[in-house]
Amino acid sequence: MKLRLGMIGGGEGAFIGAVHRIAARIDDEYELVCGAFSSNPEKSKASGVMLGLDASRVYNSYQELIEKEKQLPEDKRVQVISIVTPNHVHFDPTRMALENGFHVILDKPMTFSLAEAKELEKVVEKSDKLFCLTHTYTGYPMVKEAKQLVKSGKLGAIRKVYIEYPQGWLSGFLEGSDNKQAEWRTNPAKSGIAGCMGDIGTHAFNLAEYVTGLQTTKMCADINIVVEGRKLDDDGAVLLKYNNGASGVLTSSQIAAGEENNIKIRVYGEKGGLEWQQSDANSLIVKWGDKPAEIWRTGGGYVSSFASHNTRTPAGHPEGYLEAFANLYRNFALTIKAGLEGKIATPEMLDFPGIEDGVRGMAFVENVIASGKSTEKWTNFNI
Amino acid sequence: MKLRLGMIGGGEGAFIGAVHRIAARIDDEYELVCGAFSSNPEKSKASGVMLGLDASRVYNSYQELIEKEKQLPEDKRVQVISIVTPNHVHFDPTRMALENGFHVILDKPMTFSLAEAKELEKVVEKSDKLFCLTHTYTGYPMVKEAKQLVKSGKLGAIRKVYIEYPQGWLSGFLEGSDNKQAEWRTNPAKSGIAGCMGDIGTHAFNLAEYVTGLQTTKMCADINIVVEGRKLDDDGAVLLKYNNGASGVLTSSQIAAGEENNIKIRVYGEKGGLEWQQSDANSLIVKWGDKPAEIWRTGGGYVSSFASHNTRTPAGHPEGYLEAFANLYRNFALTIKAGLEGKIATPEMLDFPGIEDGVRGMAFVENVIASGKSTEKWTNFNI
Amino acid sequence: MKLRLGMIGGGEGAFIGAVHRIAARIDDEYELVCGAFSSNPEKSKASGVMLGLDASRVYNSYQELIEKEKQLPEDKRVQVISIVTPNHVHFDPTRMALENGFHVILDKPMTFSLAEAKELEKVVEKSDKLFCLTHTYTGYPMVKEAKQLVKSGKLGAIRKVYIEYPQGWLSGFLEGSDNKQAEWRTNPAKSGIAGCMGDIGTHAFNLAEYVTGLQTTKMCADINIVVEGRKLDDDGAVLLKYNNGASGVLTSSQIAAGEENNIKIRVYGEKGGLEWQQSDANSLIVKWGDKPAEIWRTGGGYVSSFASHNTRTPAGHPEGYLEAFANLYRNFALTIKAGLEGKIATPEMLDFPGIEDGVRGMAFVENVIASGKSTEKWTNFNI
Amino acid sequence: MKLRLGMIGGGEGAFIGAVHRIAARIDDEYELVCGAFSSNPEKSKASGVMLGLDASRVYNSYQELIEKEKQLPEDKRVQVISIVTPNHVHFDPTRMALENGFHVILDKPMTFSLAEAKELEKVVEKSDKLFCLTHTYTGYPMVKEAKQLVKSGKLGAIRKVYIEYPQGWLSGFLEGSDNKQAEWRTNPAKSGIAGCMGDIGTHAFNLAEYVTGLQTTKMCADINIVVEGRKLDDDGAVLLKYNNGASGVLTSSQIAAGEENNIKIRVYGEKGGLEWQQSDANSLIVKWGDKPAEIWRTGGGYVSSFASHNTRTPAGHPEGYLEAFANLYRNFALTIKAGLEGKIATPEMLDFPGIEDGVRGMAFVENVIASGKSTEKWTNFNI
Repeated sequence: MKLRLGMIGGGEGAFIGAVHRIAARIDDEYELVCGAFSSNPEKSKASGVMLGLDASRVYNSYQELIEKEKQLPEDKRVQVISIVTPNHVHFDPTRMALENGFHVILDKPMTFSLAEAKELEKVVEKSDKLFCLTHTYTGYPMVKEAKQLVKSGKLGAIRKVYIEYPQGWLSGFLEGSDNKQAEWRTNPAKSGIAGCMGDIGTHAFNLAEYVTGLQTTKMCADINIVVEGRKLDDDGAVLLKYNNGASGVLTSSQIAAGEENNIKIRVYGEKGGLEWQQSDANSLIVKWGDKPAEIWRTGGGYVSSFASHNTRTPAGHPEGYLEAFANLYRNFALTIKAGLEGKIATPEMLDFPGIEDGVRGMAFVENVIASGKSTEKWTNFNI
Repeated sequence: MKLRLGMIGGGEGAFIGAVHRIAARIDDEYELVCGAFSSNPEKSKASGVMLGLDASRVYNSYQELIEKEKQLPEDKRVQVISIVTPNHVHFDPTRMALENGFHVILDKPMTFSLAEAKELEKVVEKSDKLFCLTHTYTGYPMVKEAKQLVKSGKLGAIRKVYIEYPQGWLSGFLEGSDNKQAEWRTNPAKSGIAGCMGDIGTHAFNLAEYVTGLQTTKMCADINIVVEGRKLDDDGAVLLKYNNGASGVLTSSQIAAGEENNIKIRVYGEKGGLEWQQSDANSLIVKWGDKPAEIWRTGGGYVSSFASHNTRTPAGHPEGYLEAFANLYRNFALTIKAGLEGKIATPEMLDFPGIEDGVRGMAFVENVIASGKSTEKWTNFNI
Repeated sequence: MKLRLGMIGGGEGAFIGAVHRIAARIDDEYELVCGAFSSNPEKSKASGVMLGLDASRVYNSYQELIEKEKQLPEDKRVQVISIVTPNHVHFDPTRMALENGFHVILDKPMTFSLAEAKELEKVVEKSDKLFCLTHTYTGYPMVKEAKQLVKSGKLGAIRKVYIEYPQGWLSGFLEGSDNKQAEWRTNPAKSGIAGCMGDIGTHAFNLAEYVTGLQTTKMCADINIVVEGRKLDDDGAVLLKYNNGASGVLTSSQIAAGEENNIKIRVYGEKGGLEWQQSDANSLIVKWGDKPAEIWRTGGGYVSSFASHNTRTPAGHPEGYLEAFANLYRNFALTIKAGLEGKIATPEMLDFPGIEDGVRGMAFVENVIASGKSTEKWTNFNI
Repeated sequence: MKLRLGMIGGGEGAFIGAVHRIAARIDDEYELVCGAFSSNPEKSKASGVMLGLDASRVYNSYQELIEKEKQLPEDKRVQVISIVTPNHVHFDPTRMALENGFHVILDKPMTFSLAEAKELEKVVEKSDKLFCLTHTYTGYPMVKEAKQLVKSGKLGAIRKVYIEYPQGWLSGFLEGSDNKQAEWRTNPAKSGIAGCMGDIGTHAFNLAEYVTGLQTTKMCADINIVVEGRKLDDDGAVLLKYNNGASGVLTSSQIAAGEENNIKIRVYGEKGGLEWQQSDANSLIVKWGDKPAEIWRTGGGYVSSFASHNTRTPAGHPEGYLEAFANLYRNFALTIKAGLEGKIATPEMLDFPGIEDGVRGMAFVENVIASGKSTEKWTNFNI
């Protein structure tokens, strides 16, 4: 049984909408049945068509989506709605969806303001529907393992937390050019009072509280607008105090030129510490005062149920392995489709292993085993 | 438009069948419409049900699948068949599928023997259908980039190739216990004449020829059965000569205790070299004789069309990011379903960010911006 | 010509005294001629004997050293005095040495207080002698390269600086046990007002100003005593402002359990960034917004005169190579000496390559070349 | 007591002679008293002067050195002779030195041929003097730890060994230009029958036997001359069999363009494996089949006596730390000397921390502690 999924926002060209849809497909738990992909009706239609939806269930607004879907029979009606609009269009559709009986998945940061957030909290409490906020980094198996390790007490009481999220892509005044991603993220009308802090600082903040199980009690922040002409912060550093007395440092920047998205957390307790970073997402480094540091790996037989529950492949198949595999399927499909449509497949589409690779592979097997058995030094590679 | 996909093999509990299905779903280019998942009819049915297939299109054998599907109207009939059975059941279904007008995706190694492979080559040549062999590692964007870099001539003529694929999981006599994965891979009746060389050596071989564009002409192999009682090779090393005069070394082992799957390739030309390894799949290290080595990254603005065509996320979102995202969707779905089925969601299922995370996140945004503006040193974290 | 060197402090068992002496020997620019190694006369004598000094030039106090050496003929008299006492005995001997005509090398932090430091500054200004403070990390070739890179303007104006110096060795109350290193570092009477900040925070501070060429103008610090009973800070984080408007974050801790001494700096300018850390001291990572990151290496043909001037070995001989080499010399010497003294050399002393290694090595050369020429597959290894 | 050391070869401009001298100085166990640095008497004298030797003990040939030193009184006479000439001048001086009562340290490879090596073995056996061959890589603490780990049996019986030593510096025909290092290494008259295999292959071979304690019994080699016009091998790969039945692969190349000297060894036993590489010399990665890999570090409290005996600094001070320290001493000395000689110190010489760094450092300490205590957010940095 798949859950029926609808989407608000995320039309053509939106990076995060596509990510949500892939995420929904990977485990086959959802079926996309409807959407209001854009406030521009034509764009919304076009996106719906591209996604293979029934035209009658591609709507012109989130209001229409919620109202019309509600009138459908229960076994056809959408069950879960993903909301992937910019921050200023988070609160209204989420409230309306929940109040009309739909589960909601919402992109972060949750709302435009804290007041809206607290209002939404009440809506969720009153509703009997479920709510999920996509703080992606807590989805990594080894982040879950980190949390369980802290919880186990093996590191002792937590004393120090470092979290950093450096990016460099806003080092220039990109919002002055035609960059959609930069435009809304630096626009107070769409993003609210924070730029960098709302966009990625919230991820860092969430990751620290998730892994440590601690809650922030005080902060002291240095918030900067570095690039001239920018309207919202693009850099910041925050000193933190937690409810157990531990202290922390959170840094987050979009002007760290040359950096990608290397979110990283380090936590230290009385007896040991841990380190995790997205660029080596399948490793959790566990450090001890009196013995060698250890490299815990996704899929290792020793990890907790929380890490193994969130892992699809055996140890040593890094998670990107699935996308590499998907590339074969995709290029093959694109080539088939080009044929069906009378088009010529590009070299990029044709780049999948074929029969010759297979013949050569089997020739390798036979030749290598023969060479292994041979007393001759060099044997020709025969096919 | 999605292509209609069928699957032969890959029933419940088979690792690689699930991987094929996820790969097929990620880009939404396929819709699974039928399958013959096991030679055991009951198991096949159960797998089909679990996958949400129409029971009439879950078959008891690959022969039945092909025959029955052929009788369906063209716009309903399966178009592409994935074959994920053990090696000894590769040739027959592939030939039958191709000869009956279906495209085929086949798991590697291609066949049970070279003779079969050459036979299959003729079948493919006669057929007007397409054939894809899943040599996964060539699907990584930075492997594709490596190939293009060699092709560009920037490294000069290739002189030396090192490929290694170390695993440790067969360090013990696992086939003696109840390990399905170990059992067929070490069984000559199912795997053919090679164990390690067929299972992972072929990947290494294929990767080297793919990246360099060279063809192997000679080899000198040391093939070993290390674990007592084992029937097929579990370790080997091969000296290689290529058609341009370059030499190479291929090592592949399943008794390198403690190793996961860290397939790695290094290629050296007259002017520079390259290095790629699966454990850091988004980086391609490019080395030069007279200037600093460079770290080329998936999603970098400077990569070739072959790499960017095979990338779904912007630079810095490592490919495992999609699975992390999918974990949020999955846990949310499992929790909803538990509710629908009157079951209690486990703590692992409930482990997704919710409303409290959202409120705290927005509180972070407001508090941090306020602290940034404040002349007070420590400000309380208020919600 | 070697400079005549004297040492104040650094008797037996003192880690940093030995480091200073090794540093002085490596390039053969100094000859140790005298010392006042301890305030305990017997200890001072014993250390002097162990170091092979003329007994008449091993003194009981730094005052005695300076007075007596001054009376020696100019061509015999000490020229440079190294002062490696705890912080509270830095100022007096340094002033006295300079005022009496000796060059001084002083361990950091420079003095017990800022007032002393400013006083010392006047002494240095009045003196015609030279003064060196051992901020070790600025001695690394790739740190020097980092400074030159910033200076070259290639990164653009500097915007952000991160410096961190995490240690874990004071995670427990070591000063309660018999740990000399911990005792004085946590004792206000010997270290002054700061513990962690004086001991390692100063290194981080110095490194940041050295590499960037910027000067700190403002700070906001979170300084903590984490371990119960400790009298000085063992952890801290500081927000910084620099004189060009850039901001920075400095963290330094001695309770980051499991960490060694991984001092690390990252600097970001308008166009790119750099990263250096002690644990990979021979690499400088240079990052760019629009092209691949680069790995600059000690000894690379492209480095500046400042880096190459401070490098003793060709590229690829990491700096620890010299100590590895020295281990052979040392173990050989210890074995010879054991013989001269009629003692039995321990297995650790005897652990150096000998004649059998040489014979086997030459056998390798001859056998491997013969095997290379042979058409036989396996050739026996003959000696 | 220092041992009196003499040197044969290693005059000005010779890389390895300088390395031997630094190695001899680091631990202060030797005093250089004499030398025959070059077969060219003038060059030998000049080198001796530069090294501060008594002119009467700088000789014109190794024969003269040995004969004249023998006539000196026993307490003045050289005790240990380092021989750092090219391979073809190894055997004669070594034999003569040993037969005349001197200990010998000899650079590798030991001799010009295996016949000479076996002859030398007899000389050593007859002599009561000690002999050391400088296989540097076995001097690293974590290589010693690796050997002890294998010996402990914790990895189980060894099954597989990989050793690699890739270099790229001979990718071009350097011997055609004026490169002294390249010239003799590629010249059969000076190096013997092997180029790459003798120069670095022997290191790899020695390292493998040292760490595993195994002996090679069979080999199958692919030896190549890649660069046109070259007279000796510049690349090779060797399949190996060991005396316990284990197999191995040794690769060594001087045409791996872009590589420095990253010698690396991996050893796998029944229960686990180990990995060490020179570019991260202070780490030994220990891998297990059923638990997380571990990072063993130089200076860790858990290492064997063999590793700790060969370590000079506490954990976390990587070995290059000593050279960084030495750079401060060196630049300070060069600046003093420039003054003494009435020369102007270059900017590179003047690049050591001075009084201003000290004042700023103390200002950091006082300001940071004050800021830590202050309730004000930003405090000015005052000096």
